[in-house]
Amino acid sequence: MARDQRSVTPQTEDFAAWYNDVVFRAELVDRGPVRGSMVIRPYGYRIWELLQADLDGRIKATGHQNAYFPLLIPQSYMQREAEHVEGFAPELFTVTHAGGKELEEPLIVRPTSETVIGEMMAKWISSHRDLPLLLNQWANVLRWEMRPRMFLRTSEFLWQEGHTAHATAADATAETMLALGFYQDMAGQTAALATVPGEKTPGERFAGAERTFTVEGMMRDGRALQLGTSHFMGTNFAAAFGITYTSESGTAELCHTTSWGMSTRMIGGLIMTHGDDKGLVLPPAVAPYQVVIVPIGRGEQVEPTVSAAIECAATLQRAGIRTHVDDRPQASPGFKFNDWEMRGVPIRLELGPRELADGTALMSRRLSYRQPEAVKEAIPLDAAPDLLRAELAAFQAMLARRAADFRDGHIAVVSSWPQFAAAVAVGWALALHCGQQACEDEIKTETTATPRCIPLAGEPDQGACVRCGKASAYGTRVIFARAY
Amino acid sequence: MARDQRSVTPQTEDFAAWYNDVVFRAELVDRGPVRGSMVIRPYGYRIWELLQADLDGRIKATGHQNAYFPLLIPQSYMQREAEHVEGFAPELFTVTHAGGKELEEPLIVRPTSETVIGEMMAKWISSHRDLPLLLNQWANVLRWEMRPRMFLRTSEFLWQEGHTAHATAADATAETMLALGFYQDMAGQTAALATVPGEKTPGERFAGAERTFTVEGMMRDGRALQLGTSHFMGTNFAAAFGITYTSESGTAELCHTTSWGMSTRMIGGLIMTHGDDKGLVLPPAVAPYQVVIVPIGRGEQVEPTVSAAIECAATLQRAGIRTHVDDRPQASPGFKFNDWEMRGVPIRLELGPRELADGTALMSRRLSYRQPEAVKEAIPLDAAPDLLRAELAAFQAMLARRAADFRDGHIAVVSSWPQFAAAVAVGWALALHCGQQACEDEIKTETTATPRCIPLAGEPDQGACVRCGKASAYGTRVIFARAY
Repeated sequence: MARDQRSVTPQTEDFAAWYNDVVFRAELVDRGPVRGSMVIRPYGYRIWELLQADLDGRIKATGHQNAYFPLLIPQSYMQREAEHVEGFAPELFTVTHAGGKELEEPLIVRPTSETVIGEMMAKWISSHRDLPLLLNQWANVLRWEMRPRMFLRTSEFLWQEGHTAHATAADATAETMLALGFYQDMAGQTAALATVPGEKTPGERFAGAERTFTVEGMMRDGRALQLGTSHFMGTNFAAAFGITYTSESGTAELCHTTSWGMSTRMIGGLIMTHGDDKGLVLPPAVAPYQVVIVPIGRGEQVEPTVSAAIECAATLQRAGIRTHVDDRPQASPGFKFNDWEMRGVPIRLELGPRELADGTALMSRRLSYRQPEAVKEAIPLDAAPDLLRAELAAFQAMLARRAADFRDGHIAVVSSWPQFAAAVAVGWALALHCGQQACEDEIKTETTATPRCIPLAGEPDQGACVRCGKASAYGTRVIFARAY
Repeated sequence: MARDQRSVTPQTEDFAAWYNDVVFRAELVDRGPVRGSMVIRPYGYRIWELLQADLDGRIKATGHQNAYFPLLIPQSYMQREAEHVEGFAPELFTVTHAGGKELEEPLIVRPTSETVIGEMMAKWISSHRDLPLLLNQWANVLRWEMRPRMFLRTSEFLWQEGHTAHATAADATAETMLALGFYQDMAGQTAALATVPGEKTPGERFAGAERTFTVEGMMRDGRALQLGTSHFMGTNFAAAFGITYTSESGTAELCHTTSWGMSTRMIGGLIMTHGDDKGLVLPPAVAPYQVVIVPIGRGEQVEPTVSAAIECAATLQRAGIRTHVDDRPQASPGFKFNDWEMRGVPIRLELGPRELADGTALMSRRLSYRQPEAVKEAIPLDAAPDLLRAELAAFQAMLARRAADFRDGHIAVVSSWPQFAAAVAVGWALALHCGQQACEDEIKTETTATPRCIPLAGEPDQGACVRCGKASAYGTRVIFARAY
């Protein structure tokens, strides 16, 4: 299928349309047959695999073990934790028939697995010696979505959900922060995103949690995207599911549990942080192809340039660089350049007869930022692995720096309502807030901005609420922003 | 939770009870809350991850790309290929409600993804240049199961499903055989199973396939287990979903498609091939822990032996050997030995004060076979990585040889009905068969044996059907067996 090469809608014209153009034209996704469903195409799925491998390594290195729990959950389980069922009820898919018969009890397609995992934890934990129990699951979950957007809000998505049980509140709190660190680190180091970690205000907590922490990413339109969340459940789920242990002194105690998740939404964060009007831009750490080689030549030159490109690719692959040769005979070099720019490949090499004669390749970077770099640069083929490894590391660091600069330039400390409204129209506002739900709601109605988090690194501060003038809560400023 | 250490039911007494004892006591699985559902516990899931990594490598190395398709499929899709819907109708889970409302069209929870992937292939393929299209998906699938057995038949299971489209029947057939080779190779090389690859008779084909190939494994009770299947669909799904391409000469042509799958059932195959009355036996290639170190000592000896065990484990891990130290203070060495035998760890090292003084460890193998090996053997710690690598390779090869010997000793060439009945009571029968469905059905009714496959490597042979005496079909003998 010839890829659609019309240019994408400019970001400044309509960011949402730009996003949609990019996800489809870069062949990350397609629409599924059911409203709100998404097909993740190979190019998009490879990004997910690379994100998964990174996070799975962090999860395993800290003593967590993967397991798998059933997709279908008895309706009655969902109802045991009152806030939990209230939060999820409007989003549930329900199985009523199986094997040609109506089921006695309807089954819920998991929107998250606290309940079924809680049930098993109650069975597996009996002594303090069984703690901590550190589990993780990679799975699909379903939540009915009225206004779907690819990667950001789809009726089905892929994620990991960590679920842990601990003896004390202190242990469970430490786990909650450890998991938040996974997301913060992977977002920064691997996805090159600019984020702010913090705690959710009570109105934005996970259904059933005592405390919810989040990593919020700054998108290129100034909105916030929640990239991963980590929840301290206290003893709420332990009480609902009977997760108890016998202490060293022989008393029966409730466990303290946590849960934490990161999903395919992270790919949406990548797109909206790094992309531009030419399409996707991928950090090398998660790029399916870090380098694409385009052999250039006609007639008799085709064979030697294609051969040289394949040989060069093999060398780079051996050096651990994910490399692809675009030898499509029917497509012009210009078409290929546009195509790989659309698909966000960090580095392109052109190999024509002249380069072949010189033992070089022409290197182009997908993007440059505050660097007086040449548009194209000849590099010697025999030094290509080392040179490209360094280029890819520099590209990764450049994207992270660019994202951080953008974030820092789009967070405004505001002290009045007009300043607040102006700030959330283009970025994030750091404001004092009274902590009252009614006041949060008013702000949302008027500006569509919501409290994204109370930054963990926020300076101590207090004063009048930016909206209602009452005394501020939280002891520090809160980030408000429009969010995905 | 203290593990249940009662001995398992002996295999010879009740193989099914033995199997159940092992899967639960080795902590591979637990029962899920819904009938027929399975929780895969960390130890079982790690085996699955190791199998996955192995097969995923084979799949990617041959140019296939992973993707992800929706779980929920419109009911109408299932109905487009007549044989397909007929085959799967009795096993379907149906979602009728979502977001609190009844859906206009019920959605099927995928039992397999030919239909939804067929729909997308039709969209993605237009030219001969788009072929072959080589896709694979790792996913959960659901099939209602009346008589569930852990790993073997559960209402939900994990698997991979390859789906490919090709220009010609020859290309699609070659792909079908390539995928069959993945299963054959991974079963033999990685899982150390003894198998016979072959083609299914028409009555045993996948619903909608023109030809179905299978890898059949010999279990220790003489039954067969289908470990992986590969289907040549011809143009059946292409016609149902409109998967067409424009040929080089400009004509519109139907694609030829394939699909192929391997599931968590493979773990059942491992258990029933290698296990014994002490419990599980794992091939090193898929063992979560290849070596377990048990430090032995009381009082003042605890600290130095535990320290030495941890140090030794770190050395082995750096050498790429998956090693675990069992330093549970509350459990006796005898308890630990039984426990790790139950869990099938290939090699155990004991480290006590005497060994510590000598710079050695006492090594025990989980199993030996036709080798006059010492029960326990002292090995020098400073040579442990190399020695254990060699031991693990020998253990893997030993299990494969043991399985192959067992298979070869339990396949009987039969030429009469009494011989047939005797053979399928304890193993497999290689018999001439007329190929008639009614005759297959009679055999099944009388012996519960079914045709497992027409072996690919079968010698040319013909004569009278073992059951009805009519002329044999297929040109070679067919394997009949009782199967899981």
